[in-house]
Amino acid sequence: MASISPRSPPVVLELEKNSEASTTTSKFVLHDVILRVFLFATSLVALVTSKQTETIPVPFPPYGASVAAEFTDLPAFIYSSAVLSVTCFYSIITTILSFSALVKRSTTSSKLMSCVFSVDVLLLGILASTTGASGEVAYLGLKGNSNVGWHKICNVYDSYCRHIGFSVLTSIFSSMVLSFLIILYIITVSRR
Amino acid sequence: MASISPRSPPVVLELEKNSEASTTTSKFVLHDVILRVFLFATSLVALVTSKQTETIPVPFPPYGASVAAEFTDLPAFIYSSAVLSVTCFYSIITTILSFSALVKRSTTSSKLMSCVFSVDVLLLGILASTTGASGEVAYLGLKGNSNVGWHKICNVYDSYCRHIGFSVLTSIFSSMVLSFLIILYIITVSRR
Repeated sequence: MASISPRSPPVVLELEKNSEASTTTSKFVLHDVILRVFLFATSLVALVTSKQTETIPVPFPPYGASVAAEFTDLPAFIYSSAVLSVTCFYSIITTILSFSALVKRSTTSSKLMSCVFSVDVLLLGILASTTGASGEVAYLGLKGNSNVGWHKICNVYDSYCRHIGFSVLTSIFSSMVLSFLIILYIITVSRR
Repeated sequence: MASISPRSPPVVLELEKNSEASTTTSKFVLHDVILRVFLFATSLVALVTSKQTETIPVPFPPYGASVAAEFTDLPAFIYSSAVLSVTCFYSIITTILSFSALVKRSTTSSKLMSCVFSVDVLLLGILASTTGASGEVAYLGLKGNSNVGWHKICNVYDSYCRHIGFSVLTSIFSSMVLSFLIILYIITVSRR
């Protein structure tokens, strides 16, 4: 906060406040751009890793046969891929928006910002739910569940399982980045 | 917005603006209280419905025997119950906070508000992920998955499955209410 000295006339104080607000805003825009680039990177990696099709030799008779493990085998992964594609595309658009604000050294209108961050909130909900769904399938595949008779499949679908696990991990990162983005905005806007 | 007429002196304009801001704030606090009560109700219903133990007669030999279906059978439901308990407890605290602000006709400090809504964001991520995980298990239980050899279980665990389905539905409502709360805050704060 600008310190109030008895010598400072009100106009100087106002100017100091304005320059402080401008510094906070440009810091926010910089962090916004960095986080959105992170969001793009993590969602792209998660998307690419989840959308794999692999041919896996089966360890039981008939030996020599193989099964194709595709992400379309389980609906949770289809949902996950769709949401990750949307996140990836959305992060490109919003990065461009934030980057242009950074280059112009001006903030985008507060109406547009509130719109972007409202969509961020909705996307966080959807992305987190898809991460939960994929994570649950990956966990069931890894451990199985004897109570309901679902056997583990990761001993057969070995490398495919690893990819799915990595995809779930990067999805969690994406969700965390989105959360940080929204929290950063809330804190910055509340300080005004 | 306050209309600018040539006759209005600056002081009147300022007062008009202040009263307008106060109306917006009290409206926001009222909506906040209502949404937080909704959040409490939906999370409580979801919690109570998910934490059921039921004894179900099995339709295959040995006839007359029964299985106990508990929410602890599947880790996703344990996670779900834990998160719903936290949401329920958190919604009580924040409802009291918002309600006291409504009664006193004053807003809580902007620092506290930004803290509360930052926790809301984190909770939304966790709640949405647990909803996704439970929803995926419920879907697998209902439909099964022939690709990985997981058979459906809802033909056996009939009423238990209905309860879990209802619990997932109310969890989705909880997540939506949390999203609306955060979006409402973002829009209100951006307008300042």
